[in-house]
Amino acid sequence: MSLSFLNGLRVLESSAFVAAPLAGLTLSQFGAEVIRIDMIGGGMDYGRLPLAPSGRSLYWTGLNKGKRSVAVNIRRPEGRELVRSLATAPGENGGVLLTNIATHWLSHESLIQLRSDLVSCLIQGNADGSTALDYTVNCTTGYPAITGGGSLEAPVNHVAPAWDMACAYQAAFAILAAVTRRRQTGEGAELKLALADVAFTALSHLGITTEAEVLGAERPSLGNYLYGAFGRDFGTADAKRVMVAAISISQWRSLVAACEVGQQIAALEAALRRDFANEDERYEAREDIARVFEPWFARHSLAEIAPVFEQHGVCWGQYRTVRDLVANDPRVSLANPVFERMDTPGVGPHLVAGSPVRVMGEARSSGIAAPLLGQHTDEVLSEVLGLGPAEIGRLHDKSIIAGPDRDPTVYVRKPENVS
Amino acid sequence: MSLSFLNGLRVLESSAFVAAPLAGLTLSQFGAEVIRIDMIGGGMDYGRLPLAPSGRSLYWTGLNKGKRSVAVNIRRPEGRELVRSLATAPGENGGVLLTNIATHWLSHESLIQLRSDLVSCLIQGNADGSTALDYTVNCTTGYPAITGGGSLEAPVNHVAPAWDMACAYQAAFAILAAVTRRRQTGEGAELKLALADVAFTALSHLGITTEAEVLGAERPSLGNYLYGAFGRDFGTADAKRVMVAAISISQWRSLVAACEVGQQIAALEAALRRDFANEDERYEAREDIARVFEPWFARHSLAEIAPVFEQHGVCWGQYRTVRDLVANDPRVSLANPVFERMDTPGVGPHLVAGSPVRVMGEARSSGIAAPLLGQHTDEVLSEVLGLGPAEIGRLHDKSIIAGPDRDPTVYVRKPENVS
Repeated sequence: MSLSFLNGLRVLESSAFVAAPLAGLTLSQFGAEVIRIDMIGGGMDYGRLPLAPSGRSLYWTGLNKGKRSVAVNIRRPEGRELVRSLATAPGENGGVLLTNIATHWLSHESLIQLRSDLVSCLIQGNADGSTALDYTVNCTTGYPAITGGGSLEAPVNHVAPAWDMACAYQAAFAILAAVTRRRQTGEGAELKLALADVAFTALSHLGITTEAEVLGAERPSLGNYLYGAFGRDFGTADAKRVMVAAISISQWRSLVAACEVGQQIAALEAALRRDFANEDERYEAREDIARVFEPWFARHSLAEIAPVFEQHGVCWGQYRTVRDLVANDPRVSLANPVFERMDTPGVGPHLVAGSPVRVMGEARSSGIAAPLLGQHTDEVLSEVLGLGPAEIGRLHDKSIIAGPDRDPTVYVRKPENVS
Repeated sequence: MSLSFLNGLRVLESSAFVAAPLAGLTLSQFGAEVIRIDMIGGGMDYGRLPLAPSGRSLYWTGLNKGKRSVAVNIRRPEGRELVRSLATAPGENGGVLLTNIATHWLSHESLIQLRSDLVSCLIQGNADGSTALDYTVNCTTGYPAITGGGSLEAPVNHVAPAWDMACAYQAAFAILAAVTRRRQTGEGAELKLALADVAFTALSHLGITTEAEVLGAERPSLGNYLYGAFGRDFGTADAKRVMVAAISISQWRSLVAACEVGQQIAALEAALRRDFANEDERYEAREDIARVFEPWFARHSLAEIAPVFEQHGVCWGQYRTVRDLVANDPRVSLANPVFERMDTPGVGPHLVAGSPVRVMGEARSSGIAAPLLGQHTDEVLSEVLGLGPAEIGRLHDKSIIAGPDRDPTVYVRKPENVS
């Protein structure tokens, strides 16, 4: 599903893994036309797990829906020249390159010889060009040493690719900011965004580096308690688990009222000489507070808790597995307009999300599935570079370019198709 | 530090906690002028931990640097009208509102009576208007059930506010996209972005909801192993800990070469009849592979490992605490141009980050510290609304507005200042 805010904008994407494809997807979901440059046979993430029985990667098809694919042999100079021409083709809406693959022939310095107002965004691991992934950045942020009751000796990695996601959305924003300026001034921009910098700047914005530097303090390892107020997970009578959070005073009052522990909490405040209207006093007494709430959760089933919490406006959530989420949470269903059903070749019909941004009163166009490799080679070369059928045929014959018949997941599926 | 891409754009921010302030900070770091509407005495996040001895929140000052602050009594109709006027003041660069506080008098529907081309972005917990925080969204994503070797019965919350960060950067992108369209067509936009939708759409983009729906599979709980290839943490001879990742074939070959385990790995491949050139076969044999590497890490100190890994281009990182990071990692220092030193009143001089985006060949302006509450009340009302000194004086006298002398952290510091 895409919105129409960036209609006309054309972005060339040469990418792998999460951050760069997700940045391209974000632009695409707001209406930009994103053209992937793919290696014939697929790049290093084309077969990344999990795979559908057809061999198609659910990861790759998720990150690349709505894009077009041009399959090019980039090991050959003629293939590289085609890609360079696509990145720098004229027109005020062209000349935008998104990549996480640093290579001389696709460098900003080299491409501005062909188009001086190019906007390029290179996503890096580290800013010095060395490699880094979400995992190898995350370990350095200090978070694994305080996750899950862990320590520096027994750290706990997160599983959601938090830094990749943050990097992707920052990159989409930065590209759009540079395009905005180019429309005003005619000036291009060479943007670089290192995954490590995304993480370290966030630590600064959240006050965490300052806490260490100015106060000499480390954030404690709190298990599932939240920092600075009251919040924790609790088990229910029917062996479900819920997370509750009471950061604001109204969240706290709702929780106390819903669980009918007002008298006990008042007694605890008197005993400890604390005022739990202050979030920091709730935080300091978190273990005592949790002991007051535990029996209430243990006595009630989730089916009993949910309506009480809704009624009181408690800030809470249920721990789920992904299958449970997809099967039972209406927020991940067609009842939520950010989702739609899509039939991805090699995967079949399934629920997919568009942009999480809702624009009131505006419809989205139907989504388009992730391409097969080279599915749009001929049409893009014709449309963007004006190549004719004879020239396109010659490039196929020389194996400089390829169409979707060279997609390896098509080969995998062939026996089925024939039978 | 800010770049100059969005110079002139004026954004009114009425916000608390992480997602909305971080969205405003992101716009500000690209040159937008962000004006906070603050409650006199501070809103619900103004005293959020951690605090400097002065009482200033390192969290709030981190998220609100570079912004201006107007302190207004929004419980009074006259205060509300002032805020409405600021949000809808004329000029092609004005008329942009960022908020996570849903209230009728600041609703899009109400404000378009004053300015029909308003761009507003409301960040929500859930799209139905119910409350949700990073913690209460995260529990539902399935991630805590597979983090740190956890399970649905013993889930592990992440600590980095991953969804808040993703939401913030998405919001900055969406606002800019809407401003871009407004410049082209004159049309405003009412944007809504729910934290829950940010998380659930990401699960779809990453293929995780599809894995559950189409394959009926749950992602396994792998502790610190990465999914789909080879990567894990290892302890060194000097009791440090490092994370290594080998997703691409070149990352795998680098790791094997650096640790000099080529013969053992070949023997393991022969024994298991596997080919570790395939990432999914590395993944399936991850525990056997880890046992081959463990002794090498246990025999070498971090000081021995680091240069070998650099030389071979291994993808790796060191587990650190934040104090260690700030003290010893040059990426979080003035050696990294995304950082600068800043003197925040009530905090003192400290290292702060600007945008993680580097624009080659372009300098950034020096950063400006987070404001005191109401530090810019008079100048903003004069500049944006054209109010004169008499009118501004009257509003002060009636306690409709306030200046920085009413900031509670100024009161806290007064004895010090006097002595």
